[in-house]
Amino acid sequence: MLAPEGDLPRIAADILDRLRARGPRVHCVTNAVAQALTANLLLAAGAAPSMTISADEVGDFVATADALLVNLGTLDAARRAAIGVAIDRAVERGVRWMLDPVLADRSPTRAAFATVLVRLKPNAIHVNAQEFATLTGEEAAPETAARFAHARGVTVALTGATDVVADGVRLARFGNGHPWMAKITGMGCAGAALCAACLAVEQDPWRAVAAGLLMIGVAGEIAAEDARGPGGLAVGIVDALSGLDGATLRARARVAP
Amino acid sequence: MLAPEGDLPRIAADILDRLRARGPRVHCVTNAVAQALTANLLLAAGAAPSMTISADEVGDFVATADALLVNLGTLDAARRAAIGVAIDRAVERGVRWMLDPVLADRSPTRAAFATVLVRLKPNAIHVNAQEFATLTGEEAAPETAARFAHARGVTVALTGATDVVADGVRLARFGNGHPWMAKITGMGCAGAALCAACLAVEQDPWRAVAAGLLMIGVAGEIAAEDARGPGGLAVGIVDALSGLDGATLRARARVAP
Amino acid sequence: MLAPEGDLPRIAADILDRLRARGPRVHCVTNAVAQALTANLLLAAGAAPSMTISADEVGDFVATADALLVNLGTLDAARRAAIGVAIDRAVERGVRWMLDPVLADRSPTRAAFATVLVRLKPNAIHVNAQEFATLTGEEAAPETAARFAHARGVTVALTGATDVVADGVRLARFGNGHPWMAKITGMGCAGAALCAACLAVEQDPWRAVAAGLLMIGVAGEIAAEDARGPGGLAVGIVDALSGLDGATLRARARVAP
Repeated sequence: MLAPEGDLPRIAADILDRLRARGPRVHCVTNAVAQALTANLLLAAGAAPSMTISADEVGDFVATADALLVNLGTLDAARRAAIGVAIDRAVERGVRWMLDPVLADRSPTRAAFATVLVRLKPNAIHVNAQEFATLTGEEAAPETAARFAHARGVTVALTGATDVVADGVRLARFGNGHPWMAKITGMGCAGAALCAACLAVEQDPWRAVAAGLLMIGVAGEIAAEDARGPGGLAVGIVDALSGLDGATLRARARVAP
Repeated sequence: MLAPEGDLPRIAADILDRLRARGPRVHCVTNAVAQALTANLLLAAGAAPSMTISADEVGDFVATADALLVNLGTLDAARRAAIGVAIDRAVERGVRWMLDPVLADRSPTRAAFATVLVRLKPNAIHVNAQEFATLTGEEAAPETAARFAHARGVTVALTGATDVVADGVRLARFGNGHPWMAKITGMGCAGAALCAACLAVEQDPWRAVAAGLLMIGVAGEIAAEDARGPGGLAVGIVDALSGLDGATLRARARVAP
Repeated sequence: MLAPEGDLPRIAADILDRLRARGPRVHCVTNAVAQALTANLLLAAGAAPSMTISADEVGDFVATADALLVNLGTLDAARRAAIGVAIDRAVERGVRWMLDPVLADRSPTRAAFATVLVRLKPNAIHVNAQEFATLTGEEAAPETAARFAHARGVTVALTGATDVVADGVRLARFGNGHPWMAKITGMGCAGAALCAACLAVEQDPWRAVAAGLLMIGVAGEIAAEDARGPGGLAVGIVDALSGLDGATLRARARVAP
């Protein structure tokens, strides 16, 4: 029942071209640790990031944004309030949004908040295995991710050694990337922000999220060819994504059903 | 009426020497995204940065600082309160200060706050075209910048493809830098912090701001010679500024009236 | 009376092996400027960092952590509240903790808070000369550090051109590192976080802190061989620490009584 769709590498290349051409505004309510890397990767992809987490201002930023990322890392009272305002405004204005419930497995308070946010129907969710298990009560696997996506009507990016993107009907697995990427703080968060940027220029959330993961995975792989460790890799991914073109993305993408 | 003054490259080289010799303390109330890059560029220039945004503490930091930067990025209640205390103390102690109303064009709340701060007479203001238009209601151009500077009695750095510094009497245009600098988050913010550092060692705000922009522009140009993209450029600018000497700054500076 | 103990380079190599094998969770309540570098160096050493500063959540994070770092940089009301909760939970659960009273010399409010925290008996304290003088009223020197350590029953890391680690009975001086490390924002903070990680896998705080300082010093020295300035050095230290093995650590460590 679950099959990959058409030619994902070609679709991702097309979405990358749109990012470069349109420069969508992506507002990120994200954690303090990931903010700079996230902004730099969004800029490298062609998007225009903004990062305010003040409830006073975030509504205005979201109202003129093309997509919204809600990341629960370093969650605090200010971020919690801003997230409520940001999602309300996004829903009101039809701005697509992505949820990344970072480390929900480490705090029951955060897990409870994440569960509420899932009910607000984000267009996509980005989780690792521990976060998925905390949110769903099931072990992380392509099948359980697909079931959760189907039940909730949401696209799910389940990240790990192999990334999976499922929407309950379609499923794809991605083989790009490099182990050092897991040793760079905020890299997963920045990858989710790239997916949010793709939501800004692509109506189909499953295609958008697949494209975002392909971009970061291929950029990581290119950067790893010259890096000596995770420090150099973090710098190199920004450069590789900045220079990435559609042809390279298509040539290097590794997608499986 | 508007003319560049004397030998700005020589003046900037002299100001750089003073930064290295005196190591001024520069307190920055700045946005969460730019804090680390700002601190690293200030250290590379010879200054000693501090970054607290707590209203409880910021007065003590400013009282023993040699210059103050007020940057409105990621503005929130804590930063807003700290900015009030910081400016009060700066005025009381005669500490020169610089305003950078980042993204004021994206939030009416922030624009209104920026307008209030401009009335408090910062020694200099750092704006891009969108921020300038929001604050002044006029299109950004060297002439409008000069008029605003004259009317408000403030030095204005108007940044873009070509940076302009005007104080209503004098005006200079700067041709250094590299397009990738606009793709590094916080680079403009860090440049404004360098200008603030120069305010600490140079009485004339117009000369100080011109020197700060020349330093960052030349360092960017040097770094771009070896960089593969904005990631490597961000790292390289810190190194280039750290190694920059007055002779290189004079030789590379491109200034026009 | 004060003597170095046994074979510190061998002990540090052994502690590094344990970090890699066990991947301890290290919770950091640390300043906004140092968060990303701190997390990246902890990951490079094999530890698993978390960084939330919300009082709502920090108790849950500390309860499942193996060590806690309390760093007073960019101290604000949220961090102050989180620190109280975090230390209470650490004491309750027997989680070892490290105090880094950054820039306590610049703010009487911060100095007073640091003094209260010292009375709560952290397992170790990380200070530079100015912070030491502010906390103790004495000039920073190996002898005064040893006396303070003895009086308070705490291990003291006194950092500077030569780092010293004292617990009142034992004392060692470390000669590794590079002057550019002092020009990288958050490097001292990240070094203290590494010491905290070592506390997670080594019962003896003096040995743990010595090991943490040796790791960062040796990594800095290796990275400096290829760096052009503090920007490249910051990237290179992450790579060098990531690739560091026990044999290299032992071969390069410079320890004196």
